[in-house]
Amino acid sequence: MSTEEYPRSVNFGPARSFSIVLRSKMKETFFPDDPFRQFKSETSAGRRALKGLQYFIPILEWLPNYTLNLFKYDLLAGITIASLAIPQGISYANLAQIPPIIGLYSSFVPPLLYAVFGSSRHLAVGTVAACSLLIAETIEKKAEPSTDLYVSLVFTATLFAGLFQTVLGLLRLGILVDFLSHSTITGFMGGTAVLIILQQMKGFLGLKHFTAHTGIVYVIRAIIQNRNECNWKCTLIGIAFLAFLQLTRYVKKLKSSLFWVSAIGPMVVVVSGCLIAYSVGGKLGLSTVGPLKKGINSLSVNRLIFSSKYVLAPLKAGLITGLIALTEGIAIGRSFALSTNDHIDGNKEMIAYGAMNIIGSMTSCYLTTGPFSKTVVNFNSGCKTPMANVVQSVCMLMVLLFMAPLFSHTPHVALSAIIISAMLGLIKYKKAYHLFHTDKFDFLICMSAFFGVSFISMDMGLIISVGLALVRAMLYMARPGTCKLGNIPNSNLYRDVEQYPRTIGHSRILILQLGSPIYFANATYLKDRIWRWVRDENESSSSKQDIEYVLLDLGGVTAIDHTGVEALLEVRRTLENKRIKMILVNPRIDVMDKLILMGTLEKIGKEAVYLSTEDALHACKFTQHQTQELMDRAL
Amino acid sequence: MSTEEYPRSVNFGPARSFSIVLRSKMKETFFPDDPFRQFKSETSAGRRALKGLQYFIPILEWLPNYTLNLFKYDLLAGITIASLAIPQGISYANLAQIPPIIGLYSSFVPPLLYAVFGSSRHLAVGTVAACSLLIAETIEKKAEPSTDLYVSLVFTATLFAGLFQTVLGLLRLGILVDFLSHSTITGFMGGTAVLIILQQMKGFLGLKHFTAHTGIVYVIRAIIQNRNECNWKCTLIGIAFLAFLQLTRYVKKLKSSLFWVSAIGPMVVVVSGCLIAYSVGGKLGLSTVGPLKKGINSLSVNRLIFSSKYVLAPLKAGLITGLIALTEGIAIGRSFALSTNDHIDGNKEMIAYGAMNIIGSMTSCYLTTGPFSKTVVNFNSGCKTPMANVVQSVCMLMVLLFMAPLFSHTPHVALSAIIISAMLGLIKYKKAYHLFHTDKFDFLICMSAFFGVSFISMDMGLIISVGLALVRAMLYMARPGTCKLGNIPNSNLYRDVEQYPRTIGHSRILILQLGSPIYFANATYLKDRIWRWVRDENESSSSKQDIEYVLLDLGGVTAIDHTGVEALLEVRRTLENKRIKMILVNPRIDVMDKLILMGTLEKIGKEAVYLSTEDALHACKFTQHQTQELMDRAL
Repeated sequence: MSTEEYPRSVNFGPARSFSIVLRSKMKETFFPDDPFRQFKSETSAGRRALKGLQYFIPILEWLPNYTLNLFKYDLLAGITIASLAIPQGISYANLAQIPPIIGLYSSFVPPLLYAVFGSSRHLAVGTVAACSLLIAETIEKKAEPSTDLYVSLVFTATLFAGLFQTVLGLLRLGILVDFLSHSTITGFMGGTAVLIILQQMKGFLGLKHFTAHTGIVYVIRAIIQNRNECNWKCTLIGIAFLAFLQLTRYVKKLKSSLFWVSAIGPMVVVVSGCLIAYSVGGKLGLSTVGPLKKGINSLSVNRLIFSSKYVLAPLKAGLITGLIALTEGIAIGRSFALSTNDHIDGNKEMIAYGAMNIIGSMTSCYLTTGPFSKTVVNFNSGCKTPMANVVQSVCMLMVLLFMAPLFSHTPHVALSAIIISAMLGLIKYKKAYHLFHTDKFDFLICMSAFFGVSFISMDMGLIISVGLALVRAMLYMARPGTCKLGNIPNSNLYRDVEQYPRTIGHSRILILQLGSPIYFANATYLKDRIWRWVRDENESSSSKQDIEYVLLDLGGVTAIDHTGVEALLEVRRTLENKRIKMILVNPRIDVMDKLILMGTLEKIGKEAVYLSTEDALHACKFTQHQTQELMDRAL
Repeated sequence: MSTEEYPRSVNFGPARSFSIVLRSKMKETFFPDDPFRQFKSETSAGRRALKGLQYFIPILEWLPNYTLNLFKYDLLAGITIASLAIPQGISYANLAQIPPIIGLYSSFVPPLLYAVFGSSRHLAVGTVAACSLLIAETIEKKAEPSTDLYVSLVFTATLFAGLFQTVLGLLRLGILVDFLSHSTITGFMGGTAVLIILQQMKGFLGLKHFTAHTGIVYVIRAIIQNRNECNWKCTLIGIAFLAFLQLTRYVKKLKSSLFWVSAIGPMVVVVSGCLIAYSVGGKLGLSTVGPLKKGINSLSVNRLIFSSKYVLAPLKAGLITGLIALTEGIAIGRSFALSTNDHIDGNKEMIAYGAMNIIGSMTSCYLTTGPFSKTVVNFNSGCKTPMANVVQSVCMLMVLLFMAPLFSHTPHVALSAIIISAMLGLIKYKKAYHLFHTDKFDFLICMSAFFGVSFISMDMGLIISVGLALVRAMLYMARPGTCKLGNIPNSNLYRDVEQYPRTIGHSRILILQLGSPIYFANATYLKDRIWRWVRDENESSSSKQDIEYVLLDLGGVTAIDHTGVEALLEVRRTLENKRIKMILVNPRIDVMDKLILMGTLEKIGKEAVYLSTEDALHACKFTQHQTQELMDRAL
């Protein structure tokens, strides 16, 4: 190629102003999906206001277009998930050690709020086992379970969770939720499932004395100590219920159209349990949930406690469960949206969850989110809009007004069987096995959550796992990866010599590709590593001449800080002392801005910066050629 | 170009084994500078053993080649830094609130140890102001300053610092030191300088009562409250000393060969201070340091305290000061090595510092490192090897054996003037100003350390600053930067359209470059962002046709985890639902391994992966051309 074509022009600035860069970065950080673009296209202020209202209150968007046809589907789905809500509500309230009626209340008010504020078409609102257990674990340190004080603290925790979720949503801090990786959640849910299953041994075996602790060791010891209290009749019934439920799940796996079989399974267990307990419960020694009074939720605003003596436990419980509920609910909403091509604005969903929990805490409900099991049932039942949640609410209203007392005969063993069956599905051993084979660090993160939760405590398990995930991120930050590039024969492509061993090198020229970012954490490493590349190249047997040029391909480096730029300058100085020239190739826009601002571009000179490796090589060879000519003339 | 040339072959594996990858990553993380390569070239076991010994005990390497010529230089340098060691030793021991003689001890034993184990030719060993203050601040919460218990705890803190440093060095955890960025250290040192200057107001103004706290607010309040105690004669003398010292610094700035003027400045001040105090000290009301007995360091092994009642404070002090001392010392050693083309193995230096402090703690010395001021003097005095430290030790031995009592007359105001003069040099306002203009986040990190240390406490200031630096790293991790690529006219180069606005796009093909890494923290962001790129492209007025292909350039992506790969698959599914094909361009070796291991390569197909953007475009157009032909034939 003729020299006129080289070099192509590098964009040497000027650097963009700070305000432009800040604005662009704020947008990327908080509004990556550009949720307000729909407003820009509207011209009149009135329509913008309407769009704004519709954005924050989604029901205003889908309700006007609602048809009877859609309602048919939503009605069926709503009834189906309501039938799941009753056993789940009573069971999980039991887990949280609060009166079972609160579990039913929590499937009345929150789903209505989600229908108004929520974006997902398929999400079904209800309580979740993991958060129920976590709340119990945290609150019971401050108050005796099932007392008025305990229940009030649970409501207060729910309020804090809701406030936390709303604040995250309004400040668009969904970024925080992203730091809980899938592996952490899988391990956490698995560990929690193990804890819950072990805890259910009390109801399952009909024990009277148990342990207050949740760790595996405590539970096994308690079972061994109290084995005389085992009620074998109760256990047999429990095994029968459990076998039935597992069978319904298996049926669903065999033929997916028979999903409704596993959906009504828990209701069947509750009803048969009630019948058994009502008829022969006394002789069998079955304990039941106790009285469930008629009537809808009472207001619980006056029960919220903010006194400094008690407020720390609900605050802690609220923050952790709020975060976990968000992570689970949004992940579930998104995965279903993927299959139907919708898009979920995570930050907006957080506001919906926040509303559910804030208002729920004031109407005798405790923490709710979008549980996976219920949402799957909702989806398979063919729901079309959030109206299914409204139908669920109405069904729950009927139950609360007329049928609640009937469920007071539900034996604990039935609830235990339902919970154990649900929890068995959460121990994703196949996924963990797959993780082990594909990404061992992620496997470690998953297992640390699992074992941390099982053997230490739920919050410690979460902290250790998130900590390990952050360590992984920090290790990447400290060692972002560099490689030596070589030329793919018969092309102008330069690729990693380790990945493409047949590449050809250039004598006297070393081409390196640097990893991103170049920050304080890896500045020293970079200097050492580049120096080691040069040393290895000079000492390798294949090279006959010493290196004269080092080309640093910055095409992948999207960010550099002050320390990073100083590191590049130090590399240049070290190389210059060895009479090696440093060339920068393809600096990206942020890097170029920094080089200009810090005066580094002036120091190294524009003739040391090129748009591509080809351009740089051409210039180097031209210079080498010129030098050779001069030397020849001198001789 | 003919079709035979395209596409160039992508390396489709097989994936490298886990052990190979792990080994490679461990080497990058812990041995990036490959410190043991020199051993590989040795063939005999005997020579390898010798090399190994020389590696761990560097004196065995340079001492055999020592000449009288070198000694001339080292002798001069050693005497010069010894003259600085006396005033600095007494002043900083005062700061640490321990008997001043310990400051002199600390310039006797530790430099000898550094000469044996240290690698830097220019580093001069001594005590530092910041760590002295930090130790005092932490230990005085547990014991009354200047008591035997207090001094014992200081020695214990020094031992813990040494142990921590040695462990870091042996485990090659120098990576941790890299997380203290330059900006943090600048702000921390500046804030500490302010604290120390304010503290010196007691000695400077001749106050009797002061405050135990170090915060700005407390000190100003104490000065105002006790202003009646101000001894104006004392203050005048202090101002005179300070002016003299600042003048010597200015002389050095004017003419660098006159550096020795500022080097002997402190000694001149001490000597004149002694004379003034000896002659008229009583009349002027000058307080002096008190008795300094003759004799060398006594063993202090028996004074080390490990009882649980007291051990926490020295442990905390030792860890923090150990880390700061390391960071400062290694940074200083490296910056001087840069100018003389040496290379410092950071992890080996840590072992040297560890030895200094462990053995120092057992011989009545407290925390030492390589202070900048002393090292600069050493360098400017023309030192050639660590022998200068040995000379310093010998000089200090002379002082301890014969001259120590003479310095007992040193007035506190002289020490205050010396300290204030040294601290003024640490407030790097020019650097902060430069930071503000070049990198505002780094400026924030620097200022948070400065104000945190000045207004809250030293450890809080450090924690806040390091925390902010980590937040910066995490923000990068969550938003690694993506851009749209366009073709530079008359070339096969594809660059960021924002950086190079004259690029040309392709109709129906969108080319995006993804940032590195693709981890759990940014997986969701990536999905949203790619989708937004597609949406914006389809809606922009310039495009007449919808996008049919999305090319993702992974050339800069050096790492991907499980969640990241799942995110790519979800992007593919979302695009497929819109009948858009996703193409991957130039996946790097780690990414390719992961795609193979997770079975993703099979899912997306090898025909969706190309070595370069050109190859991919060629294939897309070929397919488009074929589709067009088929459609034409059908019509």
